[in-house]
Amino acid sequence: MQETPGHPDPRTFPFEVWGRLQQRIWRNPPEDLLWCHDPSGYLPLRRALADHLRVTRLLQCEPEQVVITTGMKQNVDLVGRLLLDVGDRAIAEDPGFTWFVVDSLGIGVVRAPVDEEGLDILEAERLAPDAKLAIVTPSHQCPLGSTMSLQRRIEMLRWAERRNAWILEDDYDSEFKYSGSPVAALQGLDGGHRVIYAGTFSKALFSTLRLGFLVLPPGIVDAFVRARRGIDTCPSILAQPVMAAFISEGHFGAHIRTMRQVYRRRHQALLAAVSANAAHLFMPVDSVTGLTIALQTAPSLATKMSDRRLAQLAVGAGLHASPLSGYCYDKAALHGLMVGLGTENESELTSGVAKLTLAIDGELT
Amino acid sequence: MQETPGHPDPRTFPFEVWGRLQQRIWRNPPEDLLWCHDPSGYLPLRRALADHLRVTRLLQCEPEQVVITTGMKQNVDLVGRLLLDVGDRAIAEDPGFTWFVVDSLGIGVVRAPVDEEGLDILEAERLAPDAKLAIVTPSHQCPLGSTMSLQRRIEMLRWAERRNAWILEDDYDSEFKYSGSPVAALQGLDGGHRVIYAGTFSKALFSTLRLGFLVLPPGIVDAFVRARRGIDTCPSILAQPVMAAFISEGHFGAHIRTMRQVYRRRHQALLAAVSANAAHLFMPVDSVTGLTIALQTAPSLATKMSDRRLAQLAVGAGLHASPLSGYCYDKAALHGLMVGLGTENESELTSGVAKLTLAIDGELT
Repeated sequence: MQETPGHPDPRTFPFEVWGRLQQRIWRNPPEDLLWCHDPSGYLPLRRALADHLRVTRLLQCEPEQVVITTGMKQNVDLVGRLLLDVGDRAIAEDPGFTWFVVDSLGIGVVRAPVDEEGLDILEAERLAPDAKLAIVTPSHQCPLGSTMSLQRRIEMLRWAERRNAWILEDDYDSEFKYSGSPVAALQGLDGGHRVIYAGTFSKALFSTLRLGFLVLPPGIVDAFVRARRGIDTCPSILAQPVMAAFISEGHFGAHIRTMRQVYRRRHQALLAAVSANAAHLFMPVDSVTGLTIALQTAPSLATKMSDRRLAQLAVGAGLHASPLSGYCYDKAALHGLMVGLGTENESELTSGVAKLTLAIDGELT
Repeated sequence: MQETPGHPDPRTFPFEVWGRLQQRIWRNPPEDLLWCHDPSGYLPLRRALADHLRVTRLLQCEPEQVVITTGMKQNVDLVGRLLLDVGDRAIAEDPGFTWFVVDSLGIGVVRAPVDEEGLDILEAERLAPDAKLAIVTPSHQCPLGSTMSLQRRIEMLRWAERRNAWILEDDYDSEFKYSGSPVAALQGLDGGHRVIYAGTFSKALFSTLRLGFLVLPPGIVDAFVRARRGIDTCPSILAQPVMAAFISEGHFGAHIRTMRQVYRRRHQALLAAVSANAAHLFMPVDSVTGLTIALQTAPSLATKMSDRRLAQLAVGAGLHASPLSGYCYDKAALHGLMVGLGTENESELTSGVAKLTLAIDGELT
């Protein structure tokens, strides 16, 4: 077990269904699986995914625009390598988790502020008028939990048009919206000219699967696919036909619906436990989606203990947690815990909060 | 079906065995498969592979030195990104197939001459004294078929020491040596200080699997693994435990032994067909290993027809073939066909050569 929050619960994944599909396909595989070296990925998976994204996320997308990848890091890496020149800079949210991904990939990063309406692109433009790419999480900003407002979405698209720049929309955690109506993806609003839509199956299935995807604007598909062939030929075929069947035979939709309820109950249990036991220590950040909850530390606690120490105590109490300061370039900007909902059930979360409260109170007295 | 030669025959792969292992592992997967985010790859696979390489290729290697990748392009890409700085250049064989891979990955490439003893590193050093990396295929140079001589191997290692440079040993087609005693890998001679050993399962299993590996010198393992985590987290887990079982339960060794005989018979059949029907057109390049045979064009034919046209006629005759000139930067340096043994059996190869001969003779009269 590792301590990063935000991983899904693999105990709830229907491996029997997955295994049955896998067996059906791979025991005597059709020849096209063994000869398909399409750098975009296996066409039936791209078809199933395009159908799914049109319906659930209101994307404007054809299978030809879909490229299968190994997940969010490869999504950022491919976009950075293929659309940016040496010296070009990319805007990323701070607090957030893409700014350090971008940085570690050797792309120049401009860290831009985020508030309850999401990334502030006008402020980002002021900081970096030359930026060629902005990476945003409109559905669910991590760690602040905000959903990007319509006003900000329109400003984003206008910025991209004005600056001849690209938007990489990381549709992070959009599957797991517990309440309210779903918010459509930015890509659907754009018409697909400036927005590259990025997703992963790591949150909905299990994270070691390493299967993700990009939806490209039609105008750059050919150049992108040619370049991708040079980088790693094509994505591994093994999971792709299984995933295609998993989606088109309805298992994916059913699993997401199940998990949305599971995570909703865990979310409520965690909030209830904090409210009952730890209201003097933490203020949960409001969020209606996702596999994690951010708990900001009460000012009285923040002055007495680092959030790295808080995270150690939380892990000791059986929670999956990391310090909120880890999402910020300026470590003093946030103080608190990011707690995962993927790995503990309601009673484990409830008793975890109780144990954590005892541990903190014990350490402070 | 696609026309690139050098792919293995997926019709001969034991998918029933593979499917059985896959089912055993994935129908009710152990928890470590779902939580292992080791950027090096799944430890039991690295253990099985290290054992296999020590025995079959005389490598000096521990599981800690092995990194699982998606194949040769990712091998070159990772090594280039992690060991070279912007502006550094890499030496690659010309004729060969890595010079254009290196070039397409944005690494500065120095094309170095190859003869019957393999890459001439002293000539390469004269061309580029500053080169930081050399990518070589000591076991089986493609397309010339040569095995690097001991003298050249020692010169390679001395060059790397003298220039503080790295050698990427692409152990291309070493599995399929039909005759003579096996030639040990360069890495074993080096003691693992300057040589990065690279391999792929794409030639032995099936190429859409996209599973390969690197064996790193111990001194760079930690830095390499940390950097790789930033690039794509970890390799997909799906195939790794299946491949580990496939190796450790003896199926991999058995499959290679079977395929070596299959390809040997096809190799002999193709040579016999050329000798019987097409000796006036082609001179086969001597080779004792591999999934392909190079056929150099007789001078009388080379002046009358481009080898691109020859390849079209060969494909029309049911062969998998590509023009030899495609392996050269200077397209006039070689003229002939690279013919794949992976996709046609003996009678298909024999009748393919007969049809090709008729087609060429028909076009010339």
